[in-house]
Order: sequence, then C-alpha cells, then structure tokens
Amino acid sequence: MSDDGPERKEFRDLATPDAAREAIASLDLEPEPERVPLAEARGRVLAERIDAALDVPGFDRASMDGYAVRARDTFGADEADPATLELVGEVHAGVEPELAVEPGTCAEISTGAVMPDGADAVVMVERTSQSGDVVEIRTSVAPGDHVMFAGADIAAGARALGPGTELTPREIGLLSALGADEVPVRGRPTVGVISTGDELVRPGEDLHSERGQIYDVNSYTVAAGVEEAGGEARLYPHAGDDYDEMERLLVEASEECDLVLSSGSTSASAVDVIYRVIEERGDLLLHGVAVKPGKPMLVGRVGESAYVGLPGYPVSALTIFRTFVAPAIREAAGKPEPRTATVEGNMAVRERYAEGRMRLMPAGLVDDAERNTLVYPVDKGSGATTSLVEADGVVVVGPDTDYLAEGERVEVQLFSPEVRPPSAFGAGEDDPALSRLLDRLERPRYLPVGSREGLRRLRDGVPDFAVTAGSAAREVDAVDLGGWTREWGLVVPADDPEGIEGVADLVDRDLRFVNRDANSGLRTSLGEVVADLAAERGVERRELVESIDGFDRSVRAHESPARRVLAGDADAGLGLRATAEKLGTGFVPLGEQEVRVRANPDRVGKPGVAELRERVGELDDVLEGLAGYGAT
Amino acid sequence: MSDDGPERKEFRDLATPDAAREAIASLDLEPEPERVPLAEARGRVLAERIDAALDVPGFDRASMDGYAVRARDTFGADEADPATLELVGEVHAGVEPELAVEPGTCAEISTGAVMPDGADAVVMVERTSQSGDVVEIRTSVAPGDHVMFAGADIAAGARALGPGTELTPREIGLLSALGADEVPVRGRPTVGVISTGDELVRPGEDLHSERGQIYDVNSYTVAAGVEEAGGEARLYPHAGDDYDEMERLLVEASEECDLVLSSGSTSASAVDVIYRVIEERGDLLLHGVAVKPGKPMLVGRVGESAYVGLPGYPVSALTIFRTFVAPAIREAAGKPEPRTATVEGNMAVRERYAEGRMRLMPAGLVDDAERNTLVYPVDKGSGATTSLVEADGVVVVGPDTDYLAEGERVEVQLFSPEVRPPSAFGAGEDDPALSRLLDRLERPRYLPVGSREGLRRLRDGVPDFAVTAGSAAREVDAVDLGGWTREWGLVVPADDPEGIEGVADLVDRDLRFVNRDANSGLRTSLGEVVADLAAERGVERRELVESIDGFDRSVRAHESPARRVLAGDADAGLGLRATAEKLGTGFVPLGEQEVRVRANPDRVGKPGVAELRERVGELDDVLEGLAGYGAT
Repeated sequence: MSDDGPERKEFRDLATPDAAREAIASLDLEPEPERVPLAEARGRVLAERIDAALDVPGFDRASMDGYAVRARDTFGADEADPATLELVGEVHAGVEPELAVEPGTCAEISTGAVMPDGADAVVMVERTSQSGDVVEIRTSVAPGDHVMFAGADIAAGARALGPGTELTPREIGLLSALGADEVPVRGRPTVGVISTGDELVRPGEDLHSERGQIYDVNSYTVAAGVEEAGGEARLYPHAGDDYDEMERLLVEASEECDLVLSSGSTSASAVDVIYRVIEERGDLLLHGVAVKPGKPMLVGRVGESAYVGLPGYPVSALTIFRTFVAPAIREAAGKPEPRTATVEGNMAVRERYAEGRMRLMPAGLVDDAERNTLVYPVDKGSGATTSLVEADGVVVVGPDTDYLAEGERVEVQLFSPEVRPPSAFGAGEDDPALSRLLDRLERPRYLPVGSREGLRRLRDGVPDFAVTAGSAAREVDAVDLGGWTREWGLVVPADDPEGIEGVADLVDRDLRFVNRDANSGLRTSLGEVVADLAAERGVERRELVESIDGFDRSVRAHESPARRVLAGDADAGLGLRATAEKLGTGFVPLGEQEVRVRANPDRVGKPGVAELRERVGELDDVLEGLAGYGAT
Repeated sequence: MSDDGPERKEFRDLATPDAAREAIASLDLEPEPERVPLAEARGRVLAERIDAALDVPGFDRASMDGYAVRARDTFGADEADPATLELVGEVHAGVEPELAVEPGTCAEISTGAVMPDGADAVVMVERTSQSGDVVEIRTSVAPGDHVMFAGADIAAGARALGPGTELTPREIGLLSALGADEVPVRGRPTVGVISTGDELVRPGEDLHSERGQIYDVNSYTVAAGVEEAGGEARLYPHAGDDYDEMERLLVEASEECDLVLSSGSTSASAVDVIYRVIEERGDLLLHGVAVKPGKPMLVGRVGESAYVGLPGYPVSALTIFRTFVAPAIREAAGKPEPRTATVEGNMAVRERYAEGRMRLMPAGLVDDAERNTLVYPVDKGSGATTSLVEADGVVVVGPDTDYLAEGERVEVQLFSPEVRPPSAFGAGEDDPALSRLLDRLERPRYLPVGSREGLRRLRDGVPDFAVTAGSAAREVDAVDLGGWTREWGLVVPADDPEGIEGVADLVDRDLRFVNRDANSGLRTSLGEVVADLAAERGVERRELVESIDGFDRSVRAHESPARRVLAGDADAGLGLRATAEKLGTGFVPLGEQEVRVRANPDRVGKPGVAELRERVGELDDVLEGLAGYGAT
C-alpha cells in the first residue's frame, strides 16, 4: 500500500542488516568540535590532546607545616644533639616570601607556602622546639625533604590527557590544576526528531479519542535515547496532516541537524512526503532491511543531514534505534558503548523462530535465586506500549536460527545502560492493595495478566510469583507468601438508579453489563455466582450467561468496568468495593474473595521475593483506607 | 596547629568510619519532590506511583490496513468460497468515522483508525479483493481479530510505573502514551561547594606563582562528583583570605543548599571560621575519622543544611567524597549505585599496611592478557594531582589488615562509574613522538617516570610496556615492539649568545645548566658523554660532574630544561632537538639515542598492546615534522 508511488526509487531486495549499518556509518554524523566551560565538561570527550601549559606547582612548595631550612645546617642533628637555628620570619601559603634563609637560619613555613630563597628542605614542626628567635631542630633532613619542587606534579609541556578521553571528575581535577576553564571537546551530534502520524498528539495536549487520536510515544522516547547516546535531541513541532508543513519541517530539520529521525507513520501520504523530500534534496540509500521488526526502515540523506526512518510501533522504534542508530550517534560523539549496554543470560523458555531474516527479539530479564540472569521473549509484535517497560532489551537472532533452546546462552542489548532486571517479577490479578504493596518494593515488575494467566506463567517458570484472586482452577507447585481478602460485586451508578440488587437483575432485566476478561479472578467468582443461580433455578448456566447483555463485553483492568459505568456506557460492571468508593459510584456486594501471593518454589530464596514476603506479612499499613479489604 | 582554638568542641577520639557514615546519613539531604517537563525527565527518579488516567488506546483501533467487518459476516469464508460484502466507505487514522458497518457491509480502514460502529474485526487487505463497491473476503475472522480494543494496552486506573523508578527512554515512552508532559520526580539535592584556601585561584583566572598561588582543583572535581551522584552542584565564589566574606558565603550556602562541602584548607584561620559558623549556627557532629586519608574530616550542620569538610589533597578529597558523601547524595536523589561503581580484581603486587586505622588506598587498574583485572596501589599521600588520573578508584583496607598479598582479591570503588581500565598501560621515558603515538591509541595510560623507573616497573609486572631511551642499564625480560631515534643535546638560548659548543663548555666555563632527573634516558646519555670527556682528559668523571653548575639541578619533563633556558634561568639545559625547534631556542647536538618500546611478554597478546605494536610499526605519520627523529 505504501510502495506504489511512481516517483519512488526501486529497492527490490531488502538490504542486509550489515548493509544498513554501513549505510548509516557512511552518513557522517560527526559535528565540529567545540569548546565548553570546565563546569559543563563532565561526560564530554576531549577533542584533542591537552599538554600542560604550566608547571604544577608553579613554585617550590612546602608540603608540611614546619621550618624551611638549608638541609646542610641540619646534618647530624638528632634528639640528643639538636641543631640550633635563628628564626628569621614566617612564610604563609598564598603570600610571596619577603625573606631569605641564609646559613644558620630558618623560617616558619605553612603547608603550601613558597619555599624562601636559600631554603631547600622543611623540618616538620613536631621535630622542633621554638623559644623566642631560636629554633631547635631535632632531626636531620636531606635537600628536598617535605618540598614539592616546581613542576614535580605536572611539568609544563608534558602530555596531560589524550584525545578521546571521557571527562570524569578526576580528569576535571587535572584540567583544573592546569588552569583550564574551557575545554576542547567532541561536538554532540544534533538529532532532529520529527513526528509524522496524522493521529498523533503531543503529551500535554488535548486528546480526541473519538477521532482516533493517540499520544505520540516515539518522539520523546527516541529523543531520550538520543540524549543517552550522547547526542542533542531537537523535537520539531507536530505537523499533523498538513503535508506542506511537514515538508517545510523536514527541510528545516535537515538544515539544523546532523541527523533527522522520523518514526513510521501509518499514513502513506506522510511517507510520500518524506520520499519526495529525500529524492529532491538528497539521496535515498536504502529502503527496507531484512530484519524483524524494521523491514520498512529508510536510510538516506537530506541536504547535508543524514536521515533514518524508524518503524512506528514503540518497541520496534526503540529496537531499531538501539541497534542501528544509537551506535552511530555514540561514534559521532566519541563515546564508547557503556559497559552496562549488554548483559548475558540463559533463555528461560524455548523460543521458536524461522522466518529467514534477522530478528530483533524484545526480551525481559529476571534473575533466579542464584543471581543467574534468565531471558524471556516479550511482545510478539503487538505494538503495545506496555511492552516498552516489559522488555529490557533486544536479543539478535540470526536469519538461520530456527529456535532458541531453553537454557541457551544469549546476549541482550539493553534498551538503556541504566536498565536493571527487576528485583522481583510477578504476574497475575490486578488489585489496588497489590499496587500499594508493589510501591514498597525496590524495583518490581508486575504484569496484570489475570489470575489464570499468571498461574500459567508461574508454572512455565518465568516469573518469581503469581497473584491470584478467588478459586484458582490451576494446580501449580507454589509457595504461599500470604494474602488478603477483598469484597467484590457490581459497580453501579451512584444511588443505584436502576435498583440493581444482584446478578438476577442482570439476567432478568434489560441492563447493560461490563465484565472482566476470562483470566480475571473476578470473572471466575462471578461465574460461580451465576452457576449457583442456574442451579437454584434448575437451568443451564449457559442460558443465564446468554441473558446477560455484555457478559462477553470484557475489559482489562479492575477499574475499567467501573469507569464505563461512570461514563454512562453501562448500567453495571464487575468490580471491587474499593474501586466503587474511590470513584464514588454505587456498589452491590456479591461476595468476598481471597487474593493470594504465590511464589515459584525455586525463587523463594531470592532477595526480592524475601522482601515481598516480608511486606505481605505487614499488611495493616497497605490495606489502610481500602474499603472491603481484610488481612488473612 | 589547627586544634587549639579555645571555642572548639572537643573530639578526643577519632570517630569510626561507620559512625561517620551514620552522622552523614542523619543529616537528611533529601530535597522536596518536584515536577519536571517530560523532555527533561530522563535519568530522574519517580517520586510517586503513576496510575494510568486514561485508556490506551482510547478507542477500538484497527491494527492492520484492510476492511472493518462484522466477524459473523465472514464465518465460513475461504479462498474457494469468499464472502461478499458491500463497501460503505473508508476510515482513516486520526479521523472520526462517519459511517457504521451494518450486516453485509464493510468499510476500508487504515492501521490506527477508529473502528466504526458495528464492526468488530479487521480483514487484512491481502486476503481481499475489491471491485467497485463490492469486496470479496477470502478468509474468516473472529471478533477482535486485528483490533486493539480501548484500554487493551493500558487501562485507565492501572498501575503504570512505581515510585523510585529511574526514567530511561522506555519509561519516557510509557509516560508519553499516558499524555504526561510533566512528571513528579525526586528532587536533586543542592550541594554547595566552597573553596577556602588563601592560595587557591579559580581556573581561568591569573595565577601568581611567585605568591605561591595554585589553581583550585577540588571545587570543580567535587562539583563534577556531585552531579554524577545525582546532585546539583553550586560553586560559590572564592573568598580568598577575607574571613568575613568566607563566613558570609558559608552562611549563604547553608541557606541555599541541602549540603555544603568545603575541602581542607591549609590555613588554620579558615578552619577557625568554619568551626565558628558551625558552632554558632548549627552543630558539629564529629571531627576526625579513623581513616587514612581523611582524618581531619568534619561533619555537622549549619542551620538547615548539612556540612561536610573534605581533606585538601585532590586524591584524598575525591576518595572521601566517593566513600562517604556520594552515597548520601545518591540516597537523597533516590538513585541506586551504578552497577559499574565497583570492580573486582587481584592485587598485582604485595602492599604492606599496618597503621591500625582504615585505609582508603588509591588504586590503579590494568587488565592482563586474559582480561583479568589487576589492581595496584598509587599515590602514597604525595598530594600530586597527576595521581588523580593514575588512580581509578579506592580499595578499602580494614584497620586490622597488615598487608594485601600479591594475587589477593580486592574490590575497587571506582572514582566514577565511567572509569575503565586503560587499554594499554606504560611507563618510562617521556618523548614527543611517544605522545603522538599515545594519541592514536584508544585509552592508554602512560606514566612518564623515566627509562630506568619504567624498566623497574615493567620488571615488577604492573605495566604492559616500558619506553626507554638510550642504553638501558637494567636487564629485563621484554618483547621489543619497535622504536625510533631522537637527536639530543644542549638547549641554549636562540642564537647561542654564550657560544656553547658542547659539554666541555659546561665543565670549563661559568654556565648555569639544568639537567634531567636520574631516571631519564637523556641523563644517562649525558653521563656517557661526560665519562668520555673524563677519559679523554684522564680525570675522574666525578670531577667533571662537580664542575658543572647545576648537574644536580634536575627537572621532570623533557621540555622543562628548555623552558628554564627560555625563562632566562639557565644558560643551557639537557633536551631534544625537537623541543628546541618547538620552543624556538638554539640547540647544540650531542648525539642520537634510540627510543624503544618494550612489552611485558605476558601482555603481548592483549589487544591494547597489539594495537600499540601496530602503531609503532607505522611511524612515518607520527614522526612527521618532528626535528631530529628517525624510524629504526
């Protein structure tokens, strides 16, 4: 649909990933070096060698408090037979000496002071005694003792720091010593980020969901990645569906930046504009790379600027950015890849793959109890934004690989050098008390996939723990870490205008209902109540279910049905008393259910799981103010 | 000398390091949380949990280009028996649908567009064919196929990110999806840095060495450390020796900052001012810690602000900052210790220590050929600024440890998480061609300690290579990587006003000479020329040496004697033709000497050493324009 423009250069074959890297490397993102104030130089990279322009110290300097002497005058002196010298004055740090030390004399001197003429050593104050103008020296010193000679630290002309040195506090210190208040550093490539989707709205602006608008995820994500890689990101305003404006912005960005990035638009017209600008003002080097995701990747040049088009799904955009673009930005900025940019681990599960092109597989990390890192695949191309925080990085899977075996050693290219595996990783029911509990853990990851799916994943051995609500259908070998109870029922509008009293009303009357999905423990408990009603009435459960308008209208999170009710889209929704209280709706109680936290037996010894167990054991604070909750 | 003020609180015993940590922890540096724009949130730490305030997507969204249908209308359709639907219009991304899909109809739809009323699935365009208003559907789809339902990605009310989460690009992405353009983050503690020495001058200002002034190293170093730890550094102007001004600045800083740091002044009066301000306006918690260095460390409170006084030597200041202060700043900012903050390695040499108090031993790192990290001690309290870049971090040695054995496993707390071991580590002669050669290596470390000392260190097994000039006295098992020749002699003023023609003039006439130190290969070659002259004259070498005024006046770097000559402080200095050309002085040639690069045989396989060997093999570029140099 997006490849049929008549003016477009033809790219019959997908480029190899190596060809894509070479194309980007050929674009030359490297900006001119610049000079920055020393106070802003941390993290920058020296553009040239720095030789010392002066001696440090610039003078012979006393390195002890004591007396400046001629060493020869102290030869032979000791405790039993001290030398006696005449005191001729004192010299302080930061002051030019106005005296000279002639044979037989000495001068009081402070650490850091200039050695007066004639003196060639300092006697520590502890080995002397002074009485009026007479000083007894009870030790002998050699020339140079307790003196740092001019240039002894750094000599003028000496090589101090080499080109390519990354400036950390200690290098800032050396530059300070040399008196440098400006430092020649590698430039940071300026990277323009252009947002092209008609439906995209910048965060902070009003969102019109009815028009299909969504917030622009990629611009800020990619900009943050640019800054992290050592570039300077520049966000251009969103052009919406005004193609003239889009062209104008693209040209402006190419004039102002070393590299322009845009992320895949769903609109063929937007892609047309980008194509046209590149063709008219630059050169398209490649279109399409044999990699999943990222097949539609564009690489080219617009005027003096490089251009790379990224895919549209957030995880795909970040993946392609991480793999192909960030290394080029780092190279241009002169920054080495951070040591924490990759980690190694073993596949937690088997992952099949046989598509004949390189795959960049988004992956999550979890540590086992022995601190081995396990790697598991996430996001099967769903385009979900939540996958962004579920995935820690990318595993590169070669085109000839059919599968990754469970236990196979893989390298994960982290999305950020700051990414760390979660301290504890859980999956299962979503619950407001659980949210509070998670807040008290150091660095948890929790996937609210529902009780049933949580148990399935626990059984498969990936998460550390699962959280279930109600009766769990699945038998799983797990260690119970504790739990609580919650009151559940029907969330109805405030004051219950329809006078709903229970499930029978949903069956018998014409009411719009919103359910939770089949993985949710709430749905299981609702099913049980419906089954009881069917038994009471002597009918099939299925019959009652079919009479409830919306039983199959299921939504994902525990607040979602209540929010539908609040929005007037439904008369009743499955939910919690705590949610009804929070949102100020009415509530028809149907029962209490247990929420249990259940750990993978192999992970109980893991510090994060031990911490979780401890927090589950001290629930009073967590549950405070949550309506319908109780400790068990 | 600095403990006798009558108004001072008495601290008879040094505090333990743990007590010092507790005292600093008790000071509460944590600032209020703040809200920052999303574009500036990278690297910050969430102050509170973020729950989704909206569904993402906010509408049922097509996730493929194709046709929006009622799934029921496609049941049973396949290639052989397609379903036929009437096309009622199209829906684009970012536009509100103005149509409904009734039974038997369909609508063209783009990825990202709002599903029109009635439709519950999307058929991929590839499985359809359109002819006028009639669309053939050649596959059957289930309700929900290729549709992302409202809230399926993130549901309103769901827990999105927890408090304490460090914001990397992916979290920025999730916050974007939620429309957040401002983020509640932990505050960064404001840390004031005060400079107190009378003799200190800020980099960039004029330096009066004759008054004993030196550039202030610690202020910028500590400020960079503060920023790296997640604080915001504020440098206060230097008060010089105006104690009223110093008091005013200290009070001002304590009012503006969460923490005030000063580094040890050599002036007792400055310490007095700090004492008085703390006693009058705050509380002194401890003075003196049983740790080397850092014994004189001060911890207290001035008004609402915390105060820590650091030692004066740059390496000591950075060491105490790294060990005691940076962790407190990170804690206040909510930042975890970076994973690269420490490395483990084996001691390359035995190090004795028996002082009965904890020692923070500055240490350097070097990798062996098998990429094992070796650790060696540097800076024995010399106060040298160059030690800053020689040391990579600190090894904490317990008070009861008498020595660290060669090969013993130790942990090094790096001075910065960005610090990496050098790619190649050498020691020996200083030489301008070598400086250029080093510029071409990735991340070299080179200590210009002279040929003799370089060989000694090579023999002791710490550096990867040594560089020697002239004849090497020492027998060392080494692999020669190549070398070059350089012309050496006497550097004299331009046009040689004294008419110096050789060493005989230095012996026979009243000329002031500046020599290099005994480790320098230049000095060794000069010694040989003097010995030849002595043999020629039939006298003792010692006799000639004593006739040269300044033979023992030795300076550290290859340019230093020439600079003395240039400054008019000497009539001749030992040096290179290349130096004379560079500085525009005269030159009296005395000979040529070989410079050899010699590697530790065990390290020849190390990549950095292999790189060095390669560069030494391609010398033409390096030597270009260097007078008196030749390849060998």
